[in-house]
Amino acid sequence: MELIEFKPSFDQLVYTFGGAKPIMKIKPGQALKLWSEDAFNDTIKSINDLSSEKVDLRFVNPQTGPFYVEGAEPGDTLAIHIVDLKPARNRGASTTIPFFGGLTSTDRTAMLQDALPDTTWIYEVDLAKNTVGFEARFGNFAVELPIENMLGTVGVAPPGGEVRSSLVPERFGGNMDSPEVKKGTTIYLGVNVEGALFSIGDGHYRQGEGEACGTAVEGAMDSIILVDLIKGGAPAWPRFENDEYFMSVGSSRPMEDSWRIGQVDLVRWFQDLYGLHQMDAYQLLSQITKVPIANVVDANYSVVVKAAKNLLPKVDAYGGMHQSLKDRAKGLSL
Amino acid sequence: MELIEFKPSFDQLVYTFGGAKPIMKIKPGQALKLWSEDAFNDTIKSINDLSSEKVDLRFVNPQTGPFYVEGAEPGDTLAIHIVDLKPARNRGASTTIPFFGGLTSTDRTAMLQDALPDTTWIYEVDLAKNTVGFEARFGNFAVELPIENMLGTVGVAPPGGEVRSSLVPERFGGNMDSPEVKKGTTIYLGVNVEGALFSIGDGHYRQGEGEACGTAVEGAMDSIILVDLIKGGAPAWPRFENDEYFMSVGSSRPMEDSWRIGQVDLVRWFQDLYGLHQMDAYQLLSQITKVPIANVVDANYSVVVKAAKNLLPKVDAYGGMHQSLKDRAKGLSL
Amino acid sequence: MELIEFKPSFDQLVYTFGGAKPIMKIKPGQALKLWSEDAFNDTIKSINDLSSEKVDLRFVNPQTGPFYVEGAEPGDTLAIHIVDLKPARNRGASTTIPFFGGLTSTDRTAMLQDALPDTTWIYEVDLAKNTVGFEARFGNFAVELPIENMLGTVGVAPPGGEVRSSLVPERFGGNMDSPEVKKGTTIYLGVNVEGALFSIGDGHYRQGEGEACGTAVEGAMDSIILVDLIKGGAPAWPRFENDEYFMSVGSSRPMEDSWRIGQVDLVRWFQDLYGLHQMDAYQLLSQITKVPIANVVDANYSVVVKAAKNLLPKVDAYGGMHQSLKDRAKGLSL
Amino acid sequence: MELIEFKPSFDQLVYTFGGAKPIMKIKPGQALKLWSEDAFNDTIKSINDLSSEKVDLRFVNPQTGPFYVEGAEPGDTLAIHIVDLKPARNRGASTTIPFFGGLTSTDRTAMLQDALPDTTWIYEVDLAKNTVGFEARFGNFAVELPIENMLGTVGVAPPGGEVRSSLVPERFGGNMDSPEVKKGTTIYLGVNVEGALFSIGDGHYRQGEGEACGTAVEGAMDSIILVDLIKGGAPAWPRFENDEYFMSVGSSRPMEDSWRIGQVDLVRWFQDLYGLHQMDAYQLLSQITKVPIANVVDANYSVVVKAAKNLLPKVDAYGGMHQSLKDRAKGLSL
Repeated sequence: MELIEFKPSFDQLVYTFGGAKPIMKIKPGQALKLWSEDAFNDTIKSINDLSSEKVDLRFVNPQTGPFYVEGAEPGDTLAIHIVDLKPARNRGASTTIPFFGGLTSTDRTAMLQDALPDTTWIYEVDLAKNTVGFEARFGNFAVELPIENMLGTVGVAPPGGEVRSSLVPERFGGNMDSPEVKKGTTIYLGVNVEGALFSIGDGHYRQGEGEACGTAVEGAMDSIILVDLIKGGAPAWPRFENDEYFMSVGSSRPMEDSWRIGQVDLVRWFQDLYGLHQMDAYQLLSQITKVPIANVVDANYSVVVKAAKNLLPKVDAYGGMHQSLKDRAKGLSL
Repeated sequence: MELIEFKPSFDQLVYTFGGAKPIMKIKPGQALKLWSEDAFNDTIKSINDLSSEKVDLRFVNPQTGPFYVEGAEPGDTLAIHIVDLKPARNRGASTTIPFFGGLTSTDRTAMLQDALPDTTWIYEVDLAKNTVGFEARFGNFAVELPIENMLGTVGVAPPGGEVRSSLVPERFGGNMDSPEVKKGTTIYLGVNVEGALFSIGDGHYRQGEGEACGTAVEGAMDSIILVDLIKGGAPAWPRFENDEYFMSVGSSRPMEDSWRIGQVDLVRWFQDLYGLHQMDAYQLLSQITKVPIANVVDANYSVVVKAAKNLLPKVDAYGGMHQSLKDRAKGLSL
Repeated sequence: MELIEFKPSFDQLVYTFGGAKPIMKIKPGQALKLWSEDAFNDTIKSINDLSSEKVDLRFVNPQTGPFYVEGAEPGDTLAIHIVDLKPARNRGASTTIPFFGGLTSTDRTAMLQDALPDTTWIYEVDLAKNTVGFEARFGNFAVELPIENMLGTVGVAPPGGEVRSSLVPERFGGNMDSPEVKKGTTIYLGVNVEGALFSIGDGHYRQGEGEACGTAVEGAMDSIILVDLIKGGAPAWPRFENDEYFMSVGSSRPMEDSWRIGQVDLVRWFQDLYGLHQMDAYQLLSQITKVPIANVVDANYSVVVKAAKNLLPKVDAYGGMHQSLKDRAKGLSL
Repeated sequence: MELIEFKPSFDQLVYTFGGAKPIMKIKPGQALKLWSEDAFNDTIKSINDLSSEKVDLRFVNPQTGPFYVEGAEPGDTLAIHIVDLKPARNRGASTTIPFFGGLTSTDRTAMLQDALPDTTWIYEVDLAKNTVGFEARFGNFAVELPIENMLGTVGVAPPGGEVRSSLVPERFGGNMDSPEVKKGTTIYLGVNVEGALFSIGDGHYRQGEGEACGTAVEGAMDSIILVDLIKGGAPAWPRFENDEYFMSVGSSRPMEDSWRIGQVDLVRWFQDLYGLHQMDAYQLLSQITKVPIANVVDANYSVVVKAAKNLLPKVDAYGGMHQSLKDRAKGLSL
């Protein structure tokens, strides 16, 4: 399979979903090898680089894209299969941006307390061992953690002419910050505008669920993705599928609303997949869903609701799209 | 090790944490074999038993206990190790109680819409295959699901003279409805009153994370637990430990507060366990925690924040209590 | 009308709704002159008295009561008319208790930031001018503010055997901290246990809506109340009535749920009062309700939803109970 | 004072904040007489017009504007004084849009229940009596309600290149749906882009606080506004001022966050206005703020936190801008 390679220059980076001109037109079925800059625009290179001095929250999560998918129309479903991910830099960075994150007051959960200290951690990447190194800033503790690459953002242009910051997770995907957006996962997104205009970015070498301090082990990333288009069938909210799970993702506030969105969407999906009555899908999923939190720090909080395939009769979603993408992607890797 | 066996009569069931006289005094280190009634008081025996006719929400989750632990004083830490769990009935039941559950309006998330239909599902237990059988009520779908026994409630008496319904998860534990409360897990609860006055109940043969419809596969349960006491060291919120994870559990509303509670408590615990500075514990846990939702349907929503032991240097919590309980429990089983 | 006077000794103070023996039995129709201690148990006498040293949050809001109302049974409606309120001390106190209040992280909205400084303000009471004096602690600003007496707590025993801290606002009333609980207002509470077991306390010489810092101008209070009983008709949540408004009060978390509760309850009340269809009551109230926040700092947040009588045809609630209580209370004052 | 009059054609209506070309350039100090279409684009003319058939939620709240204010730069403060408002149509309309509103599940607070019936109410306008007429749809109840004109939306372009639907209330103002946006109020908005690009719309002939059913008495509106510019001093969130109150408006989710935002912003404003220490401003405002809810139905919930001027020493905000605008507006009316 032929790969189109693309590495944006600094001037080509965009910071929104919607509102930017497509960087390239692609056909459905195209494989792409993409490079994405880290969330900080590579401004955090050492522990002496403070986020309060280097980071402007209006311009983080630089996106690679947007890509115009030929034939994509509102109401269609974009399928993005993540074939492979690999760190494109030998260090990752994480910071506690003042008044940003989950265990501090923020501009939304507004309080009068002083900010936590603006602190930077640098994680050395060891590709041979497949680890990143955590080193305490205020003591002598160090530990190697396995690399578990993921993309914090994958999204399309929003409907209604809206343009949203790449910090935002929403119906259109975006900054969901879910560890499920990893190698082997297919992401389904409803198309809102002609060409879909999807982009990716915000690579994480690893991340805890919730992304508590507000930033993961942020790093430039090489990605291979395979993109396809399903006519019609746009899901109301992002859906993921991999070999193990069917997943729906809600992003809203408060967090119980994120969960409700994901849980209702998976009920709807199961009604379709298995021909179940709403009440039976509700009951069945009540007993089998796994519900990892994705982020509690972004403009919306994201929750993933997922059902294990091995508990259920085999069924094809979107005409077997996930398996088809996997099959076509064979042989591609970083 | 000697087991005390106890099966409460109907008259001995209690429906609160706090406020009930102890059913028995036990010494720290005692193993107990306990029977607990299901959440519905065994009123839901067939699909024709409707929760609106049979269930009074003020008297559900009947508790086995409370047990007075000799020597337990406010500020101490109660450790309850779950040695084994086994269904004590050959069917489980689940219902969609009107205006109760996660995907319906409730007395709290109050709306004007009609209730969802009051529906009952009965799950046949097959102990040989270790499954419960889901059967659709409005179609021809059936599937066998693995039994994954857990206890919905384990709690102590609250502080300040409060008495709380056994529907409530809180600082004192209670109705957390977490699938982590399973065989092999040790639960740490801060003691609030002399004797701790703990109880257990609300057995689930399996449950999805979130317990979306409001009820799990509810069933009477046989439990073996091993109880011990740590002088002092009371955690602010419930903590769990098993061979794989250190866990903190927050129960509040909105759900982001539950998460904040669990995440902050695990930061505090990691400061103690590893001698980490608050900021380093915050950073490290941001990159490694798993965060499954437990329930989004009870009086408070519960979120479990957990860190995998295999990512970290070996360390003993509470003086190695979990391992000690495991060792002592060897040979005990249902 | 004969007044029963009661001033509890320190030993008679209670700190819960439910769980305490009645201090007195009264007949429906009885007027009471009651003294209540301030929320801090009079421990904050000067700006040098710090809440972190003096206040135990498990034992605040001491209650005067509980009173057993003869004939009151579960399902009945208790009516408490506030005839008059007057400061019973010549100073009020307010403090910023560490990790308590609305603009700080708390044990629920848990974060890692340092607490705000523990600070005390003393307000001198000038009954001649009917003012309390605010004096800045960190500068030279002073202003006299009008006294607007109210009771932070008025509640009955909860159902289901629960006992709740007097810090809690709930279905049973309790620590609603609403400025509407003032002279001239009738409070309707559903009775949950025989005798109703109501109590009052937590006098405020004035309070902003939200009670942002966590404490009002707290002070001992003299109250005259007139108590009556309506057989049946228990409202699901507290209702207030005065000459200007019909009001419903929701107390839950998140705050939109408190609002939903109050708004739905007022819809239900308007269906009864005016014979309106649910949809018409919904529409009408959508265009006329006033919705002041009561508190955003307690165990639950409280929101008052109210409809002005002067916009509507005259109608009697609870058989004209409010007017009847007003008439009977004539001549009573402090 | 010279008035520029503008009535947009249907083609000139815009449905976003940001993203639209300015319809006109004006100088600071300019008075404008503007006509705005109703939220439904005049599609709801009788009770037989159903919102599910006529309304596309992506294109509601048509805006009159945006206006480019000469000299306005990011960081400046736009002041918009509402000189007069008057119904521009002889009927208002309100509807219960399926799965939209405060007492129904929505796309965010997602549930499985059926929608409430899609219902339309038409309010006849009587300008002589200054009333709108409510008429029950499911019975024989009718009542005349006083007209209390307000603008649901007033906003500027967002920062960071974002474009937001005119359904959204945020830092940039927008669809706050606050009854305080009425004759005599000055609105202060931080400028994010050159020219500020403000617009107005969504006239309400009256609205209850919360806008419970999702729509007010919606109607076309004639407005006279006077616009001025303050260099610098951009508030973080919208501020209002009239003769009676200083006000800050928070719009977020959950609703306690909206309140926190407004309360913190008013603390900051009072630190500036009176030279108070943060803790003193916190304390003082805790005892005097009024906190009416604005909306609990939009993309964000809005809460107004306000402090009465008559309780406080006289002070000028923004160099006396409000009084100056009032003085200059004398003689202008509809």
